[in-house]
Amino acid sequence: MTTSSLQSAPPVEPSGVVTLLTDLGIDDPSVAIIKGVVLKAFPEARLVDVSHSVPLRGIVQGAFWLARTYGWFPEGTVHLAVVEPAQRKLPRAVLVQAGDHYFLGPDNGLLSAAVEHATRSSRRPAEVREIDLGRFALGPKRAHRARSLFAPVAAELASGRFKFSEVGEPVDGIARSPLAEARKSAAGIEGEVVFVDHFGNLVTNVEAHLLDELTEPLICIEGREIKLRESYVDVDPGEYLALVNTFGTLEIARRDSDAASSLGVAQGAKVMVR
Amino acid sequence: MTTSSLQSAPPVEPSGVVTLLTDLGIDDPSVAIIKGVVLKAFPEARLVDVSHSVPLRGIVQGAFWLARTYGWFPEGTVHLAVVEPAQRKLPRAVLVQAGDHYFLGPDNGLLSAAVEHATRSSRRPAEVREIDLGRFALGPKRAHRARSLFAPVAAELASGRFKFSEVGEPVDGIARSPLAEARKSAAGIEGEVVFVDHFGNLVTNVEAHLLDELTEPLICIEGREIKLRESYVDVDPGEYLALVNTFGTLEIARRDSDAASSLGVAQGAKVMVR
Amino acid sequence: MTTSSLQSAPPVEPSGVVTLLTDLGIDDPSVAIIKGVVLKAFPEARLVDVSHSVPLRGIVQGAFWLARTYGWFPEGTVHLAVVEPAQRKLPRAVLVQAGDHYFLGPDNGLLSAAVEHATRSSRRPAEVREIDLGRFALGPKRAHRARSLFAPVAAELASGRFKFSEVGEPVDGIARSPLAEARKSAAGIEGEVVFVDHFGNLVTNVEAHLLDELTEPLICIEGREIKLRESYVDVDPGEYLALVNTFGTLEIARRDSDAASSLGVAQGAKVMVR
Repeated sequence: MTTSSLQSAPPVEPSGVVTLLTDLGIDDPSVAIIKGVVLKAFPEARLVDVSHSVPLRGIVQGAFWLARTYGWFPEGTVHLAVVEPAQRKLPRAVLVQAGDHYFLGPDNGLLSAAVEHATRSSRRPAEVREIDLGRFALGPKRAHRARSLFAPVAAELASGRFKFSEVGEPVDGIARSPLAEARKSAAGIEGEVVFVDHFGNLVTNVEAHLLDELTEPLICIEGREIKLRESYVDVDPGEYLALVNTFGTLEIARRDSDAASSLGVAQGAKVMVR
Repeated sequence: MTTSSLQSAPPVEPSGVVTLLTDLGIDDPSVAIIKGVVLKAFPEARLVDVSHSVPLRGIVQGAFWLARTYGWFPEGTVHLAVVEPAQRKLPRAVLVQAGDHYFLGPDNGLLSAAVEHATRSSRRPAEVREIDLGRFALGPKRAHRARSLFAPVAAELASGRFKFSEVGEPVDGIARSPLAEARKSAAGIEGEVVFVDHFGNLVTNVEAHLLDELTEPLICIEGREIKLRESYVDVDPGEYLALVNTFGTLEIARRDSDAASSLGVAQGAKVMVR
Repeated sequence: MTTSSLQSAPPVEPSGVVTLLTDLGIDDPSVAIIKGVVLKAFPEARLVDVSHSVPLRGIVQGAFWLARTYGWFPEGTVHLAVVEPAQRKLPRAVLVQAGDHYFLGPDNGLLSAAVEHATRSSRRPAEVREIDLGRFALGPKRAHRARSLFAPVAAELASGRFKFSEVGEPVDGIARSPLAEARKSAAGIEGEVVFVDHFGNLVTNVEAHLLDELTEPLICIEGREIKLRESYVDVDPGEYLALVNTFGTLEIARRDSDAASSLGVAQGAKVMVR
């Protein structure tokens, strides 16, 4: 994704809200430390947990959750998202402004689905800055960047003390997400399972608006044809159904049962809608 | 429960606090989306999670938790509670003012234990309004009402922009909870197990004040007689005891052990106090 | 630990932030009740969960988490920490001011690692007050003190309505934590495993600054010698490594594996650094 050909987005007033998306879990105080860092620099910050249950190395799932959640928050919200598998060369740390939202995290694909969505829906280009480590990092270590780098930047930005353009030099674009987008073909809409929730429901990347043109969408997965319904009650227990979930995408379920194990499918499974 | 014969409650100034009780879990961002919707409409809202671990279809447990929790919050708090099993005909969406608190949720019994408690302890009638869907719903879908209907109403009410009487037409009452109330009989106090916590302790619906008249209460369950104690230390490891829990009701436990599996009882088990 | 020989700490302006550390879990509304009590008395409080997953009776783990977390929060933060095993004689309830932070909890060792750390790093004495039960307790019961005693005090203190010196009489010191401190000996640094996280990593009590004098620290555990690394990527999958974790202490891990079960060690295992 390149943003160089697009013109600058106007500055957005920070809302004071900072959302957090990580793979740190909530049992130990790792997330509390991040919150402490933000509050120490900006005591009025309003912190909201998006999720801390992103699976280890779950960049696809994290990218999906961020893209399907950010838009419900106020304009000017700072979305801090850190899922950072150990790597010999750490990805650069970036701040993106897109569609009146700020996204902050490693440039490893985690942010791009949200940034692309925000760019598309706002019809304004995203802008990307590489965070100036010398200015913001709390320590010299390359580890624990959620706490030591991204949290301080989130506080400065959300407080309004630093503007977007002051956090570092502009860069041309960010890494694409490994999260595939559903696409239309002659055969129909081709999508895939992004994650399996803990009930065994199959959450796909097929956005609801793609279904609008079809009068009676038929969802095909593993050789089975499943009808789109409005609610679980439209089928009998044990029957398969497809519906639009709270994330605004197509979901395949089996009433009172586990669709994933019944169908024998997992993340990445192909879905076709006709 | 009917409220028609009672006179109007005075309006209560909103506290700005919004509590959330759902069965959505906290792994994925479903709850974050609800919070985003509230904050987008009312950025100063102070959001508190009551629980998102209500079991699927757990209206009894949700009703109990709400009833035993709301009163600790400031007057004028908005309690958003949504546990909504799939149903062919969705229950109406209601807002209730009772005892200086606001309760917001589906009219399926989830709210009534709290509303009855608030009515009784405030000695003022509850008032019920059916939420005007056309005015508040974010979308046409009947699904995801926590996000699309109740969250927007919570924000309008907590912000003070809408008053109680402006959210919809008055209705006469709300559905009773399937949560049984403990009752006094000639034989003693008859109650039941509302839920089993994750230690195997049996949480009952017997409120502490019912025990006040008894000098040495004896709790009978599954043919066993158990004494009321102040604390776990009052018995030896492995012994049964009953005590008043943090919810203000009677709880049956076995020190350093699992009372539910030891006694072979589950939710709904009868308890008698003499 | 005695503080009597040290001179008084200056009063610290409350930040309005209240952190919560308990063993109550987050499934049921026990923690929500504590938050309600604080907000009812001080609606502007900003509440942050440190952890509610301290294991039952886990005073060592709770003490460690509090000590390694508090310093990231703003000066004047009130840290409410309650892990209180049933005991025949309840420990006194104390408020401690140390290093510009307030610590509130039972005097059972839970607070002392944080208090010692704050005293040492601020080079100012800690002051301890025994909470005046008659003034602050919401009820006569000795149970549920997080809700009935510590939460009201936290609200009064964080709101600035009560000053440190007004919560009760001064006392000389607090109970020492059972959390051992790593110590230097002729052989090296002697420490131990404080807890095993859910990946099987061994979190130790060896603070990072102790390692500064060693050019190439070698960590010895269960007869195995492990090198200090900056990141997981510095070893191959299946290899052991040691690193500095987010808590600022030494951690022993096995890449893509479970160090605790591989080494057959648990909480309390001895670690030597040479």
